[in-house]
Amino acid sequence: MDADIDYPKTGQRIPNGMLQDNYPRNMWWVAALSADITSQPISRWILETPVVLYRLENGKTAAMYDRCPHRWAPLSEGRVEGERIICPYHGMQFDPGGTCVKAPTQKMTPKTAQIPAFETREAGAFVWIWMGDKDAIDCDPPEVGYQTDPGWSFMSGYYDVAANWVLVRENVLDLTHIPFLHANTFKQNDWVTAPETYMDGDTVCYEQEFDLAPLSPLFCAGMGLPEDKPVKRKQVGRMPSLAVSFSDWNVHDPAPDEGRRSDFLMRGCHIVTPSQRGRTHYYWGAAFDVPDLDAGVIEKTRKSVIEAFDEDKHLLEIMQAQISKDPRGLDYLEVTLGADGAGIKVRQVLNKKLEAEGRSLS
Amino acid sequence: MDADIDYPKTGQRIPNGMLQDNYPRNMWWVAALSADITSQPISRWILETPVVLYRLENGKTAAMYDRCPHRWAPLSEGRVEGERIICPYHGMQFDPGGTCVKAPTQKMTPKTAQIPAFETREAGAFVWIWMGDKDAIDCDPPEVGYQTDPGWSFMSGYYDVAANWVLVRENVLDLTHIPFLHANTFKQNDWVTAPETYMDGDTVCYEQEFDLAPLSPLFCAGMGLPEDKPVKRKQVGRMPSLAVSFSDWNVHDPAPDEGRRSDFLMRGCHIVTPSQRGRTHYYWGAAFDVPDLDAGVIEKTRKSVIEAFDEDKHLLEIMQAQISKDPRGLDYLEVTLGADGAGIKVRQVLNKKLEAEGRSLS
Amino acid sequence: MDADIDYPKTGQRIPNGMLQDNYPRNMWWVAALSADITSQPISRWILETPVVLYRLENGKTAAMYDRCPHRWAPLSEGRVEGERIICPYHGMQFDPGGTCVKAPTQKMTPKTAQIPAFETREAGAFVWIWMGDKDAIDCDPPEVGYQTDPGWSFMSGYYDVAANWVLVRENVLDLTHIPFLHANTFKQNDWVTAPETYMDGDTVCYEQEFDLAPLSPLFCAGMGLPEDKPVKRKQVGRMPSLAVSFSDWNVHDPAPDEGRRSDFLMRGCHIVTPSQRGRTHYYWGAAFDVPDLDAGVIEKTRKSVIEAFDEDKHLLEIMQAQISKDPRGLDYLEVTLGADGAGIKVRQVLNKKLEAEGRSLS
Repeated sequence: MDADIDYPKTGQRIPNGMLQDNYPRNMWWVAALSADITSQPISRWILETPVVLYRLENGKTAAMYDRCPHRWAPLSEGRVEGERIICPYHGMQFDPGGTCVKAPTQKMTPKTAQIPAFETREAGAFVWIWMGDKDAIDCDPPEVGYQTDPGWSFMSGYYDVAANWVLVRENVLDLTHIPFLHANTFKQNDWVTAPETYMDGDTVCYEQEFDLAPLSPLFCAGMGLPEDKPVKRKQVGRMPSLAVSFSDWNVHDPAPDEGRRSDFLMRGCHIVTPSQRGRTHYYWGAAFDVPDLDAGVIEKTRKSVIEAFDEDKHLLEIMQAQISKDPRGLDYLEVTLGADGAGIKVRQVLNKKLEAEGRSLS
Repeated sequence: MDADIDYPKTGQRIPNGMLQDNYPRNMWWVAALSADITSQPISRWILETPVVLYRLENGKTAAMYDRCPHRWAPLSEGRVEGERIICPYHGMQFDPGGTCVKAPTQKMTPKTAQIPAFETREAGAFVWIWMGDKDAIDCDPPEVGYQTDPGWSFMSGYYDVAANWVLVRENVLDLTHIPFLHANTFKQNDWVTAPETYMDGDTVCYEQEFDLAPLSPLFCAGMGLPEDKPVKRKQVGRMPSLAVSFSDWNVHDPAPDEGRRSDFLMRGCHIVTPSQRGRTHYYWGAAFDVPDLDAGVIEKTRKSVIEAFDEDKHLLEIMQAQISKDPRGLDYLEVTLGADGAGIKVRQVLNKKLEAEGRSLS
Repeated sequence: MDADIDYPKTGQRIPNGMLQDNYPRNMWWVAALSADITSQPISRWILETPVVLYRLENGKTAAMYDRCPHRWAPLSEGRVEGERIICPYHGMQFDPGGTCVKAPTQKMTPKTAQIPAFETREAGAFVWIWMGDKDAIDCDPPEVGYQTDPGWSFMSGYYDVAANWVLVRENVLDLTHIPFLHANTFKQNDWVTAPETYMDGDTVCYEQEFDLAPLSPLFCAGMGLPEDKPVKRKQVGRMPSLAVSFSDWNVHDPAPDEGRRSDFLMRGCHIVTPSQRGRTHYYWGAAFDVPDLDAGVIEKTRKSVIEAFDEDKHLLEIMQAQISKDPRGLDYLEVTLGADGAGIKVRQVLNKKLEAEGRSLS
């Protein structure tokens, strides 16, 4: 920090910096989409760890550290035979628990050839992974099963974001950026006041009711509403885990056309997984409580959502790049506004989890 | 440094390395061309700091640290309304002094939301910036006003050079490289002896007179001289500031054609601004004391100058890249020649300024 | 290393890491192909040092540190006149011993302007360089002269591999990877048992005899053998220096067609030179003891070899990249197999040489 330049002396330090290793290990993170896991192994960076993922013949998912203990070749370059993954370099074979079961060049199988294997759970559209202490597993992955429920119409997407996961996590829990960053896409420009935020156990929550106003055009088609029709909205957000949060748009049409419903729900879902340093896997979903939406409507909505989320990605990546190149780095104090209630609660949840893992907060 | 290899044990250490933070803060640097500053904000890295620049309705220029104090979004991605710049992320508004004047999500405007703002001055074709202690401002920016004087014909250019600013600064004050690096472009191959160098107050100066010889073809067209006509030259260099230096080519034609002047001046101007680590903004100008030169002559001259300066950029960037990748880095001693008088004086001026700012010299 | 994840606690540390400065200086390394050295100077990174190489009028090779001691310009950007290399920046001239013999801007030639020069030897197709203590030169470069012997038919290639040289060196001395990594190219899938390995003085050796089996299709054409004909093989490897190793395929055809030889030799040659950190120059050669092989056969064989070696390059580069990005870096223990005899001996030779140079092993 330059002595000469008058940087603010008060404010808040980022409790865990965007340039740091700032993710809990003892929790479920999304490793991949279920559909991505086949008998063809893939490599994913998760919590700064290269992980090889593949599907067993019995349908289960295996996940292990993507480095052979012999000469460090990535197993993801190898192939799967039945339950086993075979190293591409010298053909060593490992079972899904990471135990070497065959070293082709010798009779003895070396007992020390053991790869760290990770616990996985498949639920709905996702494969979840627990990278920390297995004995600390105390819960199931968060429930996002509605995404495969036939009562809903669903669309989704994935971004590899070149920004720390906390930037993404706070972004999706802070909706007052919508009228600014997304003024020309979401166009939900009444969202300029802070929502009420609270904790429900360990779940960060926000709630906010809006009076009659046209709904964001992103969601009109999915609900069959004209873009200029005033409706009431109750916005409800919940983050049951640092890995996933939901953003519910409860819409009430006070004057529905004959034969039409008055109430609709669009449930957004935001899933983040730390990848390499300063990179994040970001999975999003958007579902309408309307079965069998027309494919054209879904595609139109999906495209509009992507157009808006591209704006987030662009901004967050510039932020990350700028902070990384700036010698001041994380030493510039943050000022927090009343509207940051949900974001601050995210940080509190994060700090609590890091402290529970004996990690020091910077 | 390898013990085995016989690297020279005598010589000179670079007083402030090319890989280091080696720029004074308490001085005027060029932030941008005047023409670049409009109501559309732009971001520039200056002294390793991201700076947002924009023009107010009253024509003045605003410059501030390009990170919102709230959640660090770059203001340069936002927009300007009147005097104010509006953060792209949550719409916070700042006046040109960096003071937050509106936080749209709340009634109270947070007093701590203050962005460092920088002093600027516009003069001639440039906007200058003072990034250090405002109380230390003790001078106006260097005078380069002839560049907008109708008595002169002017051309200019800009390079983003991937080399430390000192490499560029020394390059433009050391003209004995012209017959070697620019043997096929400048072709001013009589410039092989060291000029006289001296200090005029804090201004580094050199002077050198040359006997009859053809003038560099780069400048013949601008002065209306045939390329093979022998002329006398007095080369005068002045560096009134580390940010800017002039290179005057005073040409005397002892046998002018009837009705033609005997004396001409080409004034070169070299402006450098440290950007990111190991990068430099380099602005150059070349002006003839001939009004209303033909556009074709100007364009031809400009292209020839660029061809020559491309040679400098190429060499300096290779030097920087090689030094950066070499484990010996800056630990290879320099041998100084008699012709380095101006360059050594540059380093003395630099060290004096850094010491005045309490910076340690490595 | 994460406390939580159950990484193996036993195993072997890499004695000299793939991310470190782990090359001896007191030995001959290949600087370039002879054909690459002309009167046009070139720059090569060798042992993390930029080296300029050029050929003198008398045919000898000069090699020196590629930084002018004056202002650090790379001499490789300059030009050669007779024996001398001329700096591109200010025209300083140096003899092949690195001594400045002319500084054009002054009468006195500065005695301190001395560039480290390196000893070179040309032998066969290669120019060798000794970058360490010249007084320690105690041998000639390894003999690879058969590559220019008219009794042999020869093909060769070069790779710039983005992996530490030890990864490449171990790869070419460990042939049990052939049936796995090269299952679809070499197709020499009987090579699944460990060879006998031993030291012959300082030379790492392996030997292995194989019973009747079809020969790798890569080498059938060169020996004029049908791809399905069973032959006997004696595989002999020798590494006389960390810089070079040979892989001899002694093939015995027990039932040659009338008028044909029974015995053939394909001699592979693997030369590595550390380049920049984590990069390696890799030169390979393959020669058949058959004079005047048809150009079509040579080209077909060369292409097949490249296809196979591309598989090594791909895997080694992924390994290096993954290790570099993984915070665990080199802290993941290796398990060694019986088949690693030659590779382990390589490490022993390496450690002995590093210790002789007073380098600490990590």
